[in-house]
Amino acid sequence: MMQSFKMASRENRENSTRIQINTAARKITVGEGYCTIIAGPCAVECEESYIDMAVFLQAAGAHILRGGLFKPRTSPYSFKGLGRPGIDIIKEARQITGLPVATEIMDVRDLDILYDNIDILQVGSRNMQNFSLLEELSRLDKPILLKRGLSATIEEWLLAAEYILNGGNEKVILCERGIRTFEPYTRNTVDIGAVPLIKHLSHLPIIVDPSHATGKWHMVTPIAKAAIAAGADGVMVEVHENPDQALSDGKQSLTPENFRGMLKQVADIAHLEGKIVI
Amino acid sequence: MMQSFKMASRENRENSTRIQINTAARKITVGEGYCTIIAGPCAVECEESYIDMAVFLQAAGAHILRGGLFKPRTSPYSFKGLGRPGIDIIKEARQITGLPVATEIMDVRDLDILYDNIDILQVGSRNMQNFSLLEELSRLDKPILLKRGLSATIEEWLLAAEYILNGGNEKVILCERGIRTFEPYTRNTVDIGAVPLIKHLSHLPIIVDPSHATGKWHMVTPIAKAAIAAGADGVMVEVHENPDQALSDGKQSLTPENFRGMLKQVADIAHLEGKIVI
Amino acid sequence: MMQSFKMASRENRENSTRIQINTAARKITVGEGYCTIIAGPCAVECEESYIDMAVFLQAAGAHILRGGLFKPRTSPYSFKGLGRPGIDIIKEARQITGLPVATEIMDVRDLDILYDNIDILQVGSRNMQNFSLLEELSRLDKPILLKRGLSATIEEWLLAAEYILNGGNEKVILCERGIRTFEPYTRNTVDIGAVPLIKHLSHLPIIVDPSHATGKWHMVTPIAKAAIAAGADGVMVEVHENPDQALSDGKQSLTPENFRGMLKQVADIAHLEGKIVI
Amino acid sequence: MMQSFKMASRENRENSTRIQINTAARKITVGEGYCTIIAGPCAVECEESYIDMAVFLQAAGAHILRGGLFKPRTSPYSFKGLGRPGIDIIKEARQITGLPVATEIMDVRDLDILYDNIDILQVGSRNMQNFSLLEELSRLDKPILLKRGLSATIEEWLLAAEYILNGGNEKVILCERGIRTFEPYTRNTVDIGAVPLIKHLSHLPIIVDPSHATGKWHMVTPIAKAAIAAGADGVMVEVHENPDQALSDGKQSLTPENFRGMLKQVADIAHLEGKIVI
Repeated sequence: MMQSFKMASRENRENSTRIQINTAARKITVGEGYCTIIAGPCAVECEESYIDMAVFLQAAGAHILRGGLFKPRTSPYSFKGLGRPGIDIIKEARQITGLPVATEIMDVRDLDILYDNIDILQVGSRNMQNFSLLEELSRLDKPILLKRGLSATIEEWLLAAEYILNGGNEKVILCERGIRTFEPYTRNTVDIGAVPLIKHLSHLPIIVDPSHATGKWHMVTPIAKAAIAAGADGVMVEVHENPDQALSDGKQSLTPENFRGMLKQVADIAHLEGKIVI
Repeated sequence: MMQSFKMASRENRENSTRIQINTAARKITVGEGYCTIIAGPCAVECEESYIDMAVFLQAAGAHILRGGLFKPRTSPYSFKGLGRPGIDIIKEARQITGLPVATEIMDVRDLDILYDNIDILQVGSRNMQNFSLLEELSRLDKPILLKRGLSATIEEWLLAAEYILNGGNEKVILCERGIRTFEPYTRNTVDIGAVPLIKHLSHLPIIVDPSHATGKWHMVTPIAKAAIAAGADGVMVEVHENPDQALSDGKQSLTPENFRGMLKQVADIAHLEGKIVI
Repeated sequence: MMQSFKMASRENRENSTRIQINTAARKITVGEGYCTIIAGPCAVECEESYIDMAVFLQAAGAHILRGGLFKPRTSPYSFKGLGRPGIDIIKEARQITGLPVATEIMDVRDLDILYDNIDILQVGSRNMQNFSLLEELSRLDKPILLKRGLSATIEEWLLAAEYILNGGNEKVILCERGIRTFEPYTRNTVDIGAVPLIKHLSHLPIIVDPSHATGKWHMVTPIAKAAIAAGADGVMVEVHENPDQALSDGKQSLTPENFRGMLKQVADIAHLEGKIVI
Repeated sequence: MMQSFKMASRENRENSTRIQINTAARKITVGEGYCTIIAGPCAVECEESYIDMAVFLQAAGAHILRGGLFKPRTSPYSFKGLGRPGIDIIKEARQITGLPVATEIMDVRDLDILYDNIDILQVGSRNMQNFSLLEELSRLDKPILLKRGLSATIEEWLLAAEYILNGGNEKVILCERGIRTFEPYTRNTVDIGAVPLIKHLSHLPIIVDPSHATGKWHMVTPIAKAAIAAGADGVMVEVHENPDQALSDGKQSLTPENFRGMLKQVADIAHLEGKIVI
């Protein structure tokens, strides 16, 4: 492969990049030597349930909270998230738990409310090549979680990261979330091979999202374990109090109980790999 | 297939949609019964060459001019188009030839200069699911050329159109531009089957872009002919005075001479299909 | 592309290969300048209906009869064809109509009955890389219809042809029958771009099978027309007296009446291309 | 998914299938609770090197030897293996090490020499839907290693297994070896998600081949670990004394030293999973 990416390249920086994400209460590191757990429901749906879940996740051992306000939905008739009004719920969860929070940004015009209240801005797979958005984020001093596009090659993904690095923002975390193939049984096909390949080609941290990658809750724990065994720096999973009643992506959400089980097994493998889990 | 699209559905509107695109000098129809030719270089590169090309294309029989100001590029180091300053070149070409012009919009913040000067706004394949952009375009009274995403299913594509229709803009033209497969020889794999399928499922017009779909100039004419034979309402092709020196996508551009040859053959098939070419 | 194929390469033979297929009653040519129509039901099901269909197809203008005795079926519980006993039905249809017949060979051990009674041996897409079978067929003096594998690249397909050419059999007809993609609506995605690409890279004739490629009868005629417009040397289509009652692939079969309509439209395009249809 | 497979289904047999493979010297179990290591060069190239490698692998802890006599090669001009004369080398390696041996069968006519000398018959990915071959193997009392086809769905793969089970042979071991996607960097895309999915849908054992799945030796160890972490019953890897000089697939082969390193790490994860490694 002609390595058209430069700043993202392992050749450009021998030492793996580690990214610090600090709140008043916690200092989280994402990168080589650490196993970071990002967890939460797919979408923030209501205040009470989100706060309860956040408190549970913090107690259970998650490092970063996730929760979508703006949900990219294939159909205009689907639930699109609470939008801007939901920001207060996330702020409250962040304050109560002390954990950093990650949420997706779909429109640069939302930066006004997201920048001050969100610790990690997520670029969804459908926006991986939304170059206007990438350029805007490249000017921020804020970690970016860059999800792989639905059918993006490894090179295209690293070039999307390059847009952010090239603009001056070095805090890019890559997130493998499954690619589109011919298989109808799973939502996507998780590309675990992307983990060692990214580690070989780039110095950037990479995590795996087994919830979106598979679309099946019973595959989340095995794939989370596989990701860490293959060298990933963490996982991002969906947890929902009542997966059957979720407004978005219920079938792929772990129950709180299953989340605890996953965390235990992932931690065992992380320890074997010499990674720090907490 | 569960037809999650409604307004875009053939069941919703029995008669095929026809879209009028008028300038002071010309009235162009896109839709059933017409064969519309959109042509131009991939990117507007300089004033003189673009105006010369526009004059040639108008004389040769093209109906709509294309030309990119904002080029979505996989790498941040590639030529990204002239940007906003290039608008004057397009305005001049439009005035001289009297032809409507189509250009890609990548950022809603460019609507200020594009809305008044551009007849058709193109949504590129990477932005097919940029829902913020689609919602903004849904509020305009302006034809939208919606390119199919790199690996979008037919249903996802029609749902992207649904976003625009649902917001109040009924002027959507679909454009098949090749999908991503495992084949390394061509840039993409052109999905000619999408033409009769879209005609079966939807009332919206559909055109084919054989230049991007194949990435090989010698395949453009055969695929343009195939598109019309399969029922497409037109084709969009790249033409460049000196394909070898193009700053973007030269290998897939027709020379002016080859464009004439293509047009003749496409017109013959269009006439056989009972379509109006001019 | 490193052209690993040699004998199949256009560079190896400037003139396009034409293949003669003669019976006592007819001389059929497959290749440049001709438009050959291969038609029949997917599987030979019973004597009376097959003979009736063969007589109809001959009268309607088909050049070659198709009909499967051995059907490769994904499930061991599906109808697998009449097998060896069905050979007498094909022989009778061949004698009555005077048309050459094509049928699939799945096992070299069936050559004993197929060699003398069949004019074209078809290699199915699942066997495109069954190299033992290819090597056996390479030693015969008999036309081989080589279907493209489900996800075979153009190079792999030409290399499969190379196996046959390299063993001494120059009578290879390529058949595009759709590739596997992520699209759930159609059975496969027809790759019409393969037609001009094969014509560019190779001297071998290429035909298209729109029935298997789409799996939808209403797409067969548009795709057959597109294939010829793109330069294909013919089409192979499924026709069934009562598609709803077919034991195999009914949904993609044309009725006799639709077959007549398709033939008329395909012939119009073929004439435009300067091809001989009868 | 409509579960068209029956005998292969988890619903048909609650307990996971375990397969015994015994030689005079060893009793090997493949299935739930065990982690089986199959190793060897891609192709048997010469007597001395194969015996040396076999002795090394037995000492290092491999459970089953692999080595191809008949190599399916995309091009007719590539090295196709030693063929029938090579059987004596495999027999000798089997006798000296006491390990069972696995080799690929491409043609039913080779069963005469393979049946008595080979412990596991492998069906390659190109032959996964060679139904004549599957039916022949279904009548044997011999373990079959069934590789997944290049672009086979999970259902098609289990239906191929169903052909073997349905004919009376219950000893089927599934082997994930990568699927074809759009990614050019790796040879294939390894589908680790197939492991928990097969475990959910079927009672059959599943192993993973990270060498063919990735085509890169540096990805073999991470993917082997991921496979076991995801629940696989073993791995099959290529090892070559001098990967640079291998006649087939050198780039994906581990050196003996790297094999030792991989085995250690895979065993650590297997122990964590409660699997027996030796």
